[in-house]
Amino acid sequence: MRNMRTIFWDYETNQVNMIDQRLLPETFKIVAYQSCVDIAQAIKDMVIRGAPAIGAAAAFGLAMAARESKATDSKNLISDLLASGSFLKRSRPTAVNLAWAVDRITNKIIKFEGSCDDLRQAILIEAQKLADEDVAINRRMASHGADLIADGDTIVHHCNTGALATVDWGTALGVIRTAWEQGKKIHVLVDETRPRLQGARLTAWELEQYGIPYEIITDNMSGFFMRAGKVQKVFFGADRVTANGDVANKIGTYMLALAARDNGIPAYSVVPTSTIDLNLLHGDLIPIEERTADEVLNIQLAGERVTPKNAKARNPAFDVTPARLISGIVTENGVAYPPYKESLAKLFTASID
Amino acid sequence: MRNMRTIFWDYETNQVNMIDQRLLPETFKIVAYQSCVDIAQAIKDMVIRGAPAIGAAAAFGLAMAARESKATDSKNLISDLLASGSFLKRSRPTAVNLAWAVDRITNKIIKFEGSCDDLRQAILIEAQKLADEDVAINRRMASHGADLIADGDTIVHHCNTGALATVDWGTALGVIRTAWEQGKKIHVLVDETRPRLQGARLTAWELEQYGIPYEIITDNMSGFFMRAGKVQKVFFGADRVTANGDVANKIGTYMLALAARDNGIPAYSVVPTSTIDLNLLHGDLIPIEERTADEVLNIQLAGERVTPKNAKARNPAFDVTPARLISGIVTENGVAYPPYKESLAKLFTASID
Repeated sequence: MRNMRTIFWDYETNQVNMIDQRLLPETFKIVAYQSCVDIAQAIKDMVIRGAPAIGAAAAFGLAMAARESKATDSKNLISDLLASGSFLKRSRPTAVNLAWAVDRITNKIIKFEGSCDDLRQAILIEAQKLADEDVAINRRMASHGADLIADGDTIVHHCNTGALATVDWGTALGVIRTAWEQGKKIHVLVDETRPRLQGARLTAWELEQYGIPYEIITDNMSGFFMRAGKVQKVFFGADRVTANGDVANKIGTYMLALAARDNGIPAYSVVPTSTIDLNLLHGDLIPIEERTADEVLNIQLAGERVTPKNAKARNPAFDVTPARLISGIVTENGVAYPPYKESLAKLFTASID
Repeated sequence: MRNMRTIFWDYETNQVNMIDQRLLPETFKIVAYQSCVDIAQAIKDMVIRGAPAIGAAAAFGLAMAARESKATDSKNLISDLLASGSFLKRSRPTAVNLAWAVDRITNKIIKFEGSCDDLRQAILIEAQKLADEDVAINRRMASHGADLIADGDTIVHHCNTGALATVDWGTALGVIRTAWEQGKKIHVLVDETRPRLQGARLTAWELEQYGIPYEIITDNMSGFFMRAGKVQKVFFGADRVTANGDVANKIGTYMLALAARDNGIPAYSVVPTSTIDLNLLHGDLIPIEERTADEVLNIQLAGERVTPKNAKARNPAFDVTPARLISGIVTENGVAYPPYKESLAKLFTASID
């Protein structure tokens, strides 16, 4: 995956390419999509996942929808695109980046006047710009966040927030990569992140490639290592941050942040401002996706069933960590500290040019 | 497994039989042991697990060692037994019941004067008595604990603490069974308990047989359901409780208890007094077993590897939950409440006849 983005538009074939993250670490495979519907399905099936990465996928999905539309005037094409945008938004509910990316592009083109081909081109340019910006934003976040990491730190990291969760470089894992490149000797405790094992499969795979020392632990072990005095920092991403600083993120973040707080260890969420939803006052208003019980009953969807034949399971994919447990929110515009209502609004305003 | 104990001495063949818990829920298989060394290995390999069950296994292991010894006088036989006792104690370090069972039996026979055959018989009788008492004690614990459960409660349960973790009936899961038999409509959220999945495999299998409604969740989900107001009680067992009420139990208990406390939900540890170690002042003095990383890197020892080829992992099998997070400790002699130093000592004294 080095020198390759998690998602990119192939300008020769006009296909959207994605690394199939369901197959890692065993198999590295690029899959190509030629329709908006298939891209939405890929988001739903988690071929691609991670809030910033699915934002980019939605943007390229719209560019693909524009190519697919049989409209012959721009008014009808815009109408088709709004429908495709709604369709893409429904593929996963929790991460706000999906809606953010769709809205950013549709807002740009809603008053477009010109030929259909010019509009198709304009949308692809905008989607490409969004993807390119994601990488630049991640680098800026990483630089801000790396200042929080000291030489010798052991860091607990949740889920996957690396290059695979973004267009490239990563959010929380991007911070860790930058700290490592700065020469800080760090060690990462990678929690496996049941049910889909994004930590054990994807984060471990990325760290392996970057040469950053790590060990995998199960999600329920981080408190043990914290109590033993072995952990200095906790880093994770977010799928949506509300105006008051509540953080919706991969299931397990709340319990991890509780353990950090109980041991006086700072816990940081690393997010682009596109993940901050100032329209929601607090985290309990965030829709939490519940995925198929099969992910819990079996270890991987195609894997071994480990539970009794008739067993039922629950599978909320995210949880909300109250702002009181979040030590800081790292963005491309700097780090917000409590009280978040003021500090986030300030950062957000700064990002609007 | 109905009408069958998790571990029992077969008086026809003079073998120790155990349900092989590594194979459940797929396969129900009884394995027979004819040597003390093999019984110690079965404890180490977790053919049998759960603090009270491995106490009984150690007791029968000593009875087996007595049969195996070639000693022709009781003095030499006692010497052999002390060596076997030390060997058995080393099979797993955290649960105190192993040492407790060995000590209880060796203390009874240390001054024995009589024939070797009488001594062999005496040890088997004592081991059988210990096993029988475990069932009776569990029933008494269950009765005390069931008083804490209200009609309509949803209960989070960690690891396996049922018939399979004891000689029969169970500790925390025994409490749930008794509440269910009393007609209380309860629902159990079974956390899967990585890395060995005792919840998803064993507790789910037991609840399936008892007809008690349950759903499986991953360990990192319990906080989510607590914040959503869906959980009224948390129950777990313990491998060792220290004089101040600190509870060493299956890894993940600490984070579960933290989440319960953060949501004002009571969290109870259910243990026989044989699990209470008044000789240790606090939990940080408890030796915590670290098991093979393979249990984390793979989902089951014989199962699918889900992590990168070179990945390393950590695998502490237990953690310590500070007494401040424990709402009550249920024993066969009643429920101890904080401050535990006084309440536990009182219960413990009461159990000595």
